[in-house]
Amino acid sequence: MTPDRRWDHLLLDVGLATLADNGAPYGAIEDGAIAWRDGRIVFAGPRKDLRDEPHALAHRVESLPGTWVTPGLIDCHTHLVFGGDRAHEFERRLEGATYEEIAHTGGGIVSSVRATRAASEDELLRQSLPRARALLADGVTTLEIKSGYGLEPETERRMLRVARRIGNELGVDVRTSFLGLHALPPEYAGRRDEYVALVCDIMLPSLAAEDLVDAVDAFCEGIGFTLEETQRLFGKATELGLPVKLHAEQLSDLGGAALVARHGGLSADHLEWTSEDGVRAMADAGTVAVLLPGAYYALRDTRPPPVDAFRRHGVPMAVATDLNPGTSPLLSLRMAMGMACTLFRLTPEEALRGATVNAARALGLDDRGRLVVGLRADLAIWNVGQLAELCYWIGGGLLRETWIGGERITR
Amino acid sequence: MTPDRRWDHLLLDVGLATLADNGAPYGAIEDGAIAWRDGRIVFAGPRKDLRDEPHALAHRVESLPGTWVTPGLIDCHTHLVFGGDRAHEFERRLEGATYEEIAHTGGGIVSSVRATRAASEDELLRQSLPRARALLADGVTTLEIKSGYGLEPETERRMLRVARRIGNELGVDVRTSFLGLHALPPEYAGRRDEYVALVCDIMLPSLAAEDLVDAVDAFCEGIGFTLEETQRLFGKATELGLPVKLHAEQLSDLGGAALVARHGGLSADHLEWTSEDGVRAMADAGTVAVLLPGAYYALRDTRPPPVDAFRRHGVPMAVATDLNPGTSPLLSLRMAMGMACTLFRLTPEEALRGATVNAARALGLDDRGRLVVGLRADLAIWNVGQLAELCYWIGGGLLRETWIGGERITR
Ligand SMILES: [Zn+2]
Ligand SMILES: [Zn+2]
Repeated sequence: MTPDRRWDHLLLDVGLATLADNGAPYGAIEDGAIAWRDGRIVFAGPRKDLRDEPHALAHRVESLPGTWVTPGLIDCHTHLVFGGDRAHEFERRLEGATYEEIAHTGGGIVSSVRATRAASEDELLRQSLPRARALLADGVTTLEIKSGYGLEPETERRMLRVARRIGNELGVDVRTSFLGLHALPPEYAGRRDEYVALVCDIMLPSLAAEDLVDAVDAFCEGIGFTLEETQRLFGKATELGLPVKLHAEQLSDLGGAALVARHGGLSADHLEWTSEDGVRAMADAGTVAVLLPGAYYALRDTRPPPVDAFRRHGVPMAVATDLNPGTSPLLSLRMAMGMACTLFRLTPEEALRGATVNAARALGLDDRGRLVVGLRADLAIWNVGQLAELCYWIGGGLLRETWIGGERITR
Repeated sequence: MTPDRRWDHLLLDVGLATLADNGAPYGAIEDGAIAWRDGRIVFAGPRKDLRDEPHALAHRVESLPGTWVTPGLIDCHTHLVFGGDRAHEFERRLEGATYEEIAHTGGGIVSSVRATRAASEDELLRQSLPRARALLADGVTTLEIKSGYGLEPETERRMLRVARRIGNELGVDVRTSFLGLHALPPEYAGRRDEYVALVCDIMLPSLAAEDLVDAVDAFCEGIGFTLEETQRLFGKATELGLPVKLHAEQLSDLGGAALVARHGGLSADHLEWTSEDGVRAMADAGTVAVLLPGAYYALRDTRPPPVDAFRRHGVPMAVATDLNPGTSPLLSLRMAMGMACTLFRLTPEEALRGATVNAARALGLDDRGRLVVGLRADLAIWNVGQLAELCYWIGGGLLRETWIGGERITR
């Protein structure tokens, strides 16, 4: 008796944004069909290319006219695990308080560090889960989460454990980045070297040994860490066999993009101030440019990243929420895609590639981000007549449902 | 036998943003209780002021710790009934097409007029309902809808009928505005006077006679209609006993705000170019300033409305989505509130007043917009720890549920 080789599930009468190179914008297939088995895509093409009757091909067959299927969205840059929030600080600023006054009364990143350190693991999970659920409710099927509000071994560890638990709770793949070099903790004021040594020599190796670190990140900036400090961290990451990425050139051009490119980094993120040299270095290394329009919007920034230079040099662009309590309280990746269009002048196709295939690359994942045979069956199904609507509508519930590894995720 | 005078429903352990003048920001009551009977609020105050055991007071008692109750949100400026959408135009612009090229190939408002004229009443309802549902899903309980994509009697009528039907379908109060003077229809090119006469002398009286018009609006702008044409319309509205409002000074200062104020108008809307004189006229007349940050954002405008002058002169400010296919495809009023904070520097309290009590005033409604005894039991219940979160978070599903006239609206 031959085993039943029928597909698990077959969707018919859908548009497909495969993002494969089939000559059409979005790699689109208008009258498409897509099927999977054991969590992997086994068919993605024009319906007319099906070689048999649908029910002979698949156990379950569904017709969804009026929808488009895209790869499940991938949010490749978030800080969504944190204690407290900074809504009160947002309000005080709008009521006229200066940054100094807010810092003086314990505001700013320090307040997130304090609240995160004070929260137990369960409490941190409880506070963070609704944010992850919000991302999923707008189409995300893979997300990255950074540490960086602990700035001491136990809390950094707790953040990364919570990140992993979010993945288990929601059935979504969570990739972690260790961001010990996010800010200098107050108790290390005047002792930078000691803190950098703690991060590089104690925290990173022990967290990596616990398998809590998928990549290593840092905040390389005048108000963050220097090129040299970042380089020291990257050296350690390379020793441990971990890929690197970097918060680079959000506020000034320190040469961070070139640095992370030299280390074969997965991505450089923010990049408002990146020079043509930095862009060229990224192109040579294949480093992804992760654009974060939520922070640009919330900070009322006026200098967009050099999108034309990225295009000219063939640097792949990703788009992410940067979800964080201080500078980007943005709970929708689709909204980030829209902002990337409106504020950074990406095309809707670039924005969608940025939240799928290029975001996968920014996380070092080659098993997702397009709708092609062999990749994971991570899908988002949208109630839209054309793909540009994903970026055009601001807000609204366009998502019909997502599938992760061939499992339907109800919203 | 005395009739049962118990309340229908009592909520306990909630925060209340009453927006009444009780000396606290937001008119807030932290450990609050709110109750209603026959669709009207009968109690809204500190829980400790309840004079009896909850179950002795009300048929149904619910405890909702960790939530805040606000008045149901009121979107006082939308164009949400239209045929088609303009996502393709959005995409073409981002791909480099000029406005001219788009207009030449039938884009711009003309394309919405064409699609709206071509759609049957049922089709127009089918296309518009999801947009209204999206607004409701983020807390709206009253909304205004304008005509203005028909520009000929039958289609203007159809739009207003669809607006009314949306109200019936969703159990939400819809207020209509007749916007015949939205744009000069192409078939009247060179015959402006004839079109204005058609609007003033034929369309408005007949639509008003059918009870399809709650207010009269116009687009007073260099690319729209002149002060004189607007004045002629307003004269007719006044004759018919209808209140007026106006799209004024979005692109230039024609003096529209002063004009609508002189007519005792409910609101002047947009107002990026309004002068101090215009602001003073609005203050004298009690005309509400309706701020529309969605269009400002989508058009990448750089000149915000004169918020400080409105404050100085005591002009009430409302905030609305301006939901429309061309310049503000914004499906969330809460998002408009956040944009009003980030882009126009309103405080979160001003933004909430703008989407409740001041929005009610912009529609001439005095029975809603605050949580005080005697007003309609239109409530939004939010899963937030503090009210500023409504403006702080961008996207996300913060709404727990809404109540309209004492009826629970499931999302
Ligand atoms: Zn970041
Ligand atoms: Zn408008």
